[in-house]
Formats: sequence, structure tokens, C-alpha cells
Amino acid sequence: MRKIYAIGIGAGDPEHLTVQAVKRLNEVDVFFVLAKGKEKDDLVRARQQILDRFVERPGYRVVRAEDPPRDRNPTDYRVAVADWHEARTELYEQLIRDELAEDQVGAILVWGDPALYDSTIALIDAVLARGAVEFSYEVIPGISSLAALTAAHRTTMNQIGRPVLITTGRRVEAGWPADIDDVFVMLDANCTFDRFTGEGLHLYWGAYLGTPTEILLEGPLTAELAGRVRSIRTEARARNGWIMDTYLLRRHRE
Amino acid sequence: MRKIYAIGIGAGDPEHLTVQAVKRLNEVDVFFVLAKGKEKDDLVRARQQILDRFVERPGYRVVRAEDPPRDRNPTDYRVAVADWHEARTELYEQLIRDELAEDQVGAILVWGDPALYDSTIALIDAVLARGAVEFSYEVIPGISSLAALTAAHRTTMNQIGRPVLITTGRRVEAGWPADIDDVFVMLDANCTFDRFTGEGLHLYWGAYLGTPTEILLEGPLTAELAGRVRSIRTEARARNGWIMDTYLLRRHRE
Repeated sequence: MRKIYAIGIGAGDPEHLTVQAVKRLNEVDVFFVLAKGKEKDDLVRARQQILDRFVERPGYRVVRAEDPPRDRNPTDYRVAVADWHEARTELYEQLIRDELAEDQVGAILVWGDPALYDSTIALIDAVLARGAVEFSYEVIPGISSLAALTAAHRTTMNQIGRPVLITTGRRVEAGWPADIDDVFVMLDANCTFDRFTGEGLHLYWGAYLGTPTEILLEGPLTAELAGRVRSIRTEARARNGWIMDTYLLRRHRE
Repeated sequence: MRKIYAIGIGAGDPEHLTVQAVKRLNEVDVFFVLAKGKEKDDLVRARQQILDRFVERPGYRVVRAEDPPRDRNPTDYRVAVADWHEARTELYEQLIRDELAEDQVGAILVWGDPALYDSTIALIDAVLARGAVEFSYEVIPGISSLAALTAAHRTTMNQIGRPVLITTGRRVEAGWPADIDDVFVMLDANCTFDRFTGEGLHLYWGAYLGTPTEILLEGPLTAELAGRVRSIRTEARARNGWIMDTYLLRRHRE
């Protein structure tokens, strides 16, 4: 039977790969890489560098496919994601069926941890649910961007005995969540931290985490700091053609 | 100058160590291991197995110390943790000052990710703040128990575009948080999931994650499943002398 690995490869630093991930990489016959447009060229190249560095087993193949386009400014976020998910499901089914022999092992390399704001697990489940192709699969956890962010800032996710919320830019726009002091914001292209300046919060921000171009900024969330992050972000995005960033907003309790 | 590494070693599987963690282990002169009582003997042994397996550099030392006692059923949780934190700060200061030469590297191995419900980073900061001993330090992120739990269950932390709350048993006792569908519960000795049976939730539970004695259970959170987890938990705890478990409570949206 075919086997698929969803392998978390960490947030950007190749050395964030786990020993388990490196072992699994060396069992793989076919790596599936979905790429879309210019913004992801660097990420495709970074995946290849991981293979070059860690795979000692010769003869593996890399199968590239064009990721279906996604509406980045949809009126209904969940519907747009569902449509995109459907198109990707069909693509993955086809790749697994056509590119993988019955006894072969395929893998999808996932930035960060496959469990966190990534659709790979859901789409593997969706391919299985369609029933057109059979395979077993395994998920290999990875260092998430949140773990990379907090480690780089040498801080924690939670304060003592307190909860932590992980949410999206879209959601935190609606206001600060009740009874929460630590909020991680993902997928925020709009610098939503701007909304919370002058409220006694602390910002821990990071972009291109774990890579040579990593940028870190932190401090009391004043309008000045928010403006500085915004302009550094704009400038870095223009220079690199893309940006991946995340941040923690903290209300200090102790 | 002395250097300290806080190294995340994953939730239980030695193969969850990252390449970065393995590299740092091999730079260390002195490993500090705080042990307390019987319940942690297995964990001290597991740390030693990690060193035996991954450290190729000869001549490192392991310095063991007794972790200060901690009130497990305090009237004020935060005060009790603060007292414990203070006693541990003094102990770490003493260990770093007395056991580490000026040019040496010390390390503290942290289960899971040092950022998540672990006091190591806070106590290193506290030692530095006291100013009695100088050192540089670095945090090496690790696979958290949440990443290990979700990977083992082949599920995600979040649903599409939705937030995730990470909280404690103590806090979730007060009731289901508003506007949240996915709640990770840590540090819950009281099987607080019992409180939420029959409410249409799904439970993903795991104990001894990543170890040979790993136990996984999942399903719709009925009274029957809650009872089964409770009795398996009690029995495993009696057999092993200790238990570390965590779980995700999910309200399915899709």
C-alpha cells in the first residue's frame, strides 16, 4: 500500500528539522511540492536545500505542481478556503494516484508544524474520504512559527498559569479577546497590531523566522513601534517579494 | 563568559529532538538536571538516554539537584508558583555560579517546548535580574506536547481560519470559553473534560506522548468515553507512578 508522510520542517531554519523528520525524509520515493507564483520561489528553493542537506538515499524524485490559485481578499474567507481546499484535494489525489507506485512512499513537506494553520492534514483526509486512492499516512510534527518566534525572543507563549490564544489577523481586528493576556496573531497581512497601540501591551514580532534574513522586533506597543514594524515589513516585503511574519501581543500580568 | 542553553527536547520521543538541539547538546560542558521524588525518575532516565544517544563529545558532566518542593494544592495557585519560582531561581543561580567555569557552557533540558507551560526561561531571566552571576543564553525550541498530540491523532490544532485556546484544567473548569471551538487543556490532574460530556464536543487525549507507553484515545465526548479515559488514566498512573497527559476539546464547525 502507498504511504504518505506529512512532514513538519520547521519555520525556516533547516536545523529545526527533527531527527524523526530526517529519518522519514530518507524513506521517501517522491516529494510533492506545490508552488505558486513568485512569492514562493524562495520557499521551493529552501525545501530543495533541505533535501540536498538531509537526504542521503539516492534516487528520490521531486514532483512539482502548480498550487491552485486562491482568492486572497474574499468576501467570505471560509468559502474561499473551502473552494481552494477542493481544488487542492483533486490535485493531490491525482498526484498520489499518478506519481506514486503501489509500494512507494510520498511526502509533503510542511513549513512549521502541520497542525497549525496548514491545510495538508485536512486535504489528505479529504483525498482518503473520496475513496479513489488508498494509502496509509503519518504526520511528523515540526517546530511551529510560534515556537521559533518565542525562542528567538527568549520568551514564553504563556504567563504563569494563564491561557494563550492563537488567532488570525482577521479575528483580532474585532477587538481584544476577553480574559486573555497573550495572543498570537497568524496570517495577518494588515498589521492589525496597529489597532492596539497605547493599551499597555508588549509586542514580540518576527519575520522570516529561522532564516538568514530573520527580522525580530519587540517592545512596548507604542504607535512608534507599530509604525516601525509596519515600515520594516513593507520594505522587507518589497525587497524579498514576499513576507511571512507572526507576532505575540502580551499584556504583562506579573 | 558563561553560556546557558535552554533546550527543548520534545514531548517524549527522543527522535523529536531537532538537528539544532543535537548540535547544541554537543557544545555543553554541564547539564543541569533537577529531579524531584519518584514521579520524575523515569524522566531523569529518559534525559540520560537522550545524552547517551546524541552526545558524541566526551567529558560532559551531569549535575543533579533536588527540585524545591511545590505545593500541588495551593489556595492561591499564582502565589505558590511564585514561591516555587523564587526557590528555583536561587538554586539555579547557585548551580550556574558553582558548577560552571567562566568559559563553560551549561544546559537545561526542557520537556516539550521551553515556551509552553515551563518555567525555565522565566527562571533564567530571574537569575540574570538578580545580577549575581553573568552569562549569555539561548533558547532552542522543541516539539511541544500539543504538536505531539495532534500529530499522533493526525489532526490539526485549529479549524480553518478559527482560533485556538491553550489553557489549564483549573481555568476550563469555569466553563467553555466564548467564541472558541478548539481548546487544549494542560496541567489537568482532575479530568476536567468530564464537565463537558454530551455537549457535542470531540476529545483527542494522549498520555506519555512519544514514548513506548503512549496512550491515545479520541472520539465524541460522551460520558462513556470520559469514563474510559478516566479509568485508563488512573490505572496507567498507578502502574507507572506518574502520568503526563494533555488533550484537545473540539467543537466541529465544518
